[in-house]
Amino acid sequence: MSTSSAQQEDALVTSTNPLHPANLISELCASFYTLGWVTGTGGGICIRTDDKVYIAPSGVQKERIEPAHIFVLPYPQAEPSPHTDRIFLRRPKLNLKESACTPLFWNAFTLRNAGSCIHTHSQNAVMATLLWEKDMVFRISHQKMIKGVRIGGNGPTLSYLDTLEVPIINNTPNEEDLTDSMKDAMEKYPSAAAILVLRHGIYVWGDDWQKAKTQTECLDYLFEIGVKMKLAGLQTVLNE
Amino acid sequence: MSTSSAQQEDALVTSTNPLHPANLISELCASFYTLGWVTGTGGGICIRTDDKVYIAPSGVQKERIEPAHIFVLPYPQAEPSPHTDRIFLRRPKLNLKESACTPLFWNAFTLRNAGSCIHTHSQNAVMATLLWEKDMVFRISHQKMIKGVRIGGNGPTLSYLDTLEVPIINNTPNEEDLTDSMKDAMEKYPSAAAILVLRHGIYVWGDDWQKAKTQTECLDYLFEIGVKMKLAGLQTVLNE
Amino acid sequence: MSTSSAQQEDALVTSTNPLHPANLISELCASFYTLGWVTGTGGGICIRTDDKVYIAPSGVQKERIEPAHIFVLPYPQAEPSPHTDRIFLRRPKLNLKESACTPLFWNAFTLRNAGSCIHTHSQNAVMATLLWEKDMVFRISHQKMIKGVRIGGNGPTLSYLDTLEVPIINNTPNEEDLTDSMKDAMEKYPSAAAILVLRHGIYVWGDDWQKAKTQTECLDYLFEIGVKMKLAGLQTVLNE
Amino acid sequence: MSTSSAQQEDALVTSTNPLHPANLISELCASFYTLGWVTGTGGGICIRTDDKVYIAPSGVQKERIEPAHIFVLPYPQAEPSPHTDRIFLRRPKLNLKESACTPLFWNAFTLRNAGSCIHTHSQNAVMATLLWEKDMVFRISHQKMIKGVRIGGNGPTLSYLDTLEVPIINNTPNEEDLTDSMKDAMEKYPSAAAILVLRHGIYVWGDDWQKAKTQTECLDYLFEIGVKMKLAGLQTVLNE
Repeated sequence: MSTSSAQQEDALVTSTNPLHPANLISELCASFYTLGWVTGTGGGICIRTDDKVYIAPSGVQKERIEPAHIFVLPYPQAEPSPHTDRIFLRRPKLNLKESACTPLFWNAFTLRNAGSCIHTHSQNAVMATLLWEKDMVFRISHQKMIKGVRIGGNGPTLSYLDTLEVPIINNTPNEEDLTDSMKDAMEKYPSAAAILVLRHGIYVWGDDWQKAKTQTECLDYLFEIGVKMKLAGLQTVLNE
Repeated sequence: MSTSSAQQEDALVTSTNPLHPANLISELCASFYTLGWVTGTGGGICIRTDDKVYIAPSGVQKERIEPAHIFVLPYPQAEPSPHTDRIFLRRPKLNLKESACTPLFWNAFTLRNAGSCIHTHSQNAVMATLLWEKDMVFRISHQKMIKGVRIGGNGPTLSYLDTLEVPIINNTPNEEDLTDSMKDAMEKYPSAAAILVLRHGIYVWGDDWQKAKTQTECLDYLFEIGVKMKLAGLQTVLNE
Repeated sequence: MSTSSAQQEDALVTSTNPLHPANLISELCASFYTLGWVTGTGGGICIRTDDKVYIAPSGVQKERIEPAHIFVLPYPQAEPSPHTDRIFLRRPKLNLKESACTPLFWNAFTLRNAGSCIHTHSQNAVMATLLWEKDMVFRISHQKMIKGVRIGGNGPTLSYLDTLEVPIINNTPNEEDLTDSMKDAMEKYPSAAAILVLRHGIYVWGDDWQKAKTQTECLDYLFEIGVKMKLAGLQTVLNE
Repeated sequence: MSTSSAQQEDALVTSTNPLHPANLISELCASFYTLGWVTGTGGGICIRTDDKVYIAPSGVQKERIEPAHIFVLPYPQAEPSPHTDRIFLRRPKLNLKESACTPLFWNAFTLRNAGSCIHTHSQNAVMATLLWEKDMVFRISHQKMIKGVRIGGNGPTLSYLDTLEVPIINNTPNEEDLTDSMKDAMEKYPSAAAILVLRHGIYVWGDDWQKAKTQTECLDYLFEIGVKMKLAGLQTVLNE
């Protein structure tokens, strides 16, 4: 790679604007760390702006990401196959690999036209998968915070009178092997705003990073209070 | 709107004084976010200074509010009706709507002459509404923190020997539809310093932002310890 | 008061040294707020350096104290009586009263020669008073953190093989009315490093602010884990 | 010690590089304090870079360590015996002693070739020792976060299909008396990535500070969720 093309690539993640995706990913991951969502290098957020996708590296401390660590990919592009590789506009110079969540984030882009997708290992989400494992769907009704969640993650917001449903898929030893079952669940539950992964965490998407983030907050709140309610012997869904 | 009137309006929310209401709302909302009170765009604080009311926008990330986003309204003014609109001294230039809590904050101004009103979705408050749903009143006695709460929210402080009562009203699908039942509860419970909303959160007011904030802290503490006590099988009210 | 004496008084709380008591009280109270120890204006820390005592005001937001708000008192001095007033070297200009904890802090100075005393409303302490109310003494053994607590608060540290005992006194409607019962408990339990107040909180002291603070941390940790153990059905004291 | 040798020693802990071990220890200890891992002066992190070991002092507030407080030791060196002393390249000028964890950190260096070792008093770890005391091994399976833990702490990462085992050793009144039993447990459990100490805390190591830190985060997460699961009546190990 010539010096000038390296410079052009670095320009993709270099900006004094705090709202540039490379800056936002660094800032938001640090904030998610304090919430306990992305400790131990897990989880993160990716952002898509029209024709470019910004993704953090795999296996790094998420609260210490710098804009220079960010991968940039062209959008759209086909999923890699045995015969094709993933295409990048920019790879960080360090010895880094893109997040293992990349194909799962891509599901959110292609199936829901998302502009951002968040993955957390929040214990609220994981406890919800354990306590709702029998049904493989987390369900809660009559909570104000339901109104902060959009139908399908990108439609109109749910009403207080709606029952929120978040499907749970089984975990797999390799993150990328979740790709198909996440896709299947998104197709089977077109109204679902997120996909829970059993004993693992959650994927939440939105039209942009703001909507992905605030929906993750609302869902995490609902998992937390749902778990508290269930452990206190309270019903989480009324009128059934 | 002419340039000079726009400048005059912006001056209403522009100050280097950290205690200016527009600066305080931004700072306090960020602080409330770390307490888990206003995640997912919910909740917030409004401040009234004599003849002006400062209110945050609806549906925005509360921890990222800037003074330029703040609405300013003249006080007093009649509640909007089918024939009248709410009157503003200043609207932010962005495509924003005033907080859906506005008519509820107004209850605190008109019924209790409050200088500030806070709305949170704190899980302590919501768990309290769920565990005291049968009575529709949260009750606790013999806790030091009761002394931090004022009778009616604006009177003398309660004594350690008083029983704190916070009425719970039913939630409605639209925030503004809580206006009348909140008003009714405030009239039925003239000593109440706040109104809990079932499966939703709480409204707390005070003579100024300091008193509204510290009373919210005391009440949230009391909901938290009340919930812990009830789940541990301890009575929250003695001598009944 | 003449201008020059006012200036002399202000000099008592003005320093660029972050370890000056007036600066430390402001910084530590802000830190205690984030721990949930001093919300709702309750709790705080006082520091004594040889012949001067630095105390925060009563009824203010503890996370927003400024050095200029600090009271300075000469030490020693007799407790105020019907015929004498408390003596001050410096009062803040604002309309403030010294902390209602002042006579309780003084107990720690006179009975244990403490250089600092901390009061918190930590829920861990309050839950401990509720769950150990029958005995009016919190007791725990075989916890590493016991080693961080000193016999009498100012002696050698306890051993892992010692049982920690913290007496609990009844609360009173007025903070200052705790003075005598705190004194009695300190005399009855000369090895106690702190006094718990039922349904209220705790007073912890030490030779200096560092020792008072780290002992408060150890005790709060022990209350927290003791409460968890008791609620999980585990014995907190072995070999009895 | 001559002035110039003192300057040479100070140079060992003086750097503008935030990733210098003396700076990192200060920064990371402050961060661990906010996680509740090192309150009350307990716990901490040491870092080894080839032939030098950087260690914090004993009995100090870990969130207030400054680079000038750091001890530097040559590596390798034999453990002190009745006839030999520990060798230092640099001791801080203050009246400080090296961390009592030093011989335990050394176990990680000599037995696992670690580049860093972390000790916490996290309540999640301590609760795990209490709830798994009967077996003296904490065990959990089928949790995504298991993948963040390396076999032996320095080998390949565990798989989602592996059962994580962390041995628990008995506590002793003096920290250094844990040295032999920690060594024995590390030899008996060569795959263990950490050693739990009953009613005390945990020691976790890694090839470098990043791996030690992220493994501590993963393990702490697993203790936390394991405790929640056990208290909720859920099995933490499947298929046994």
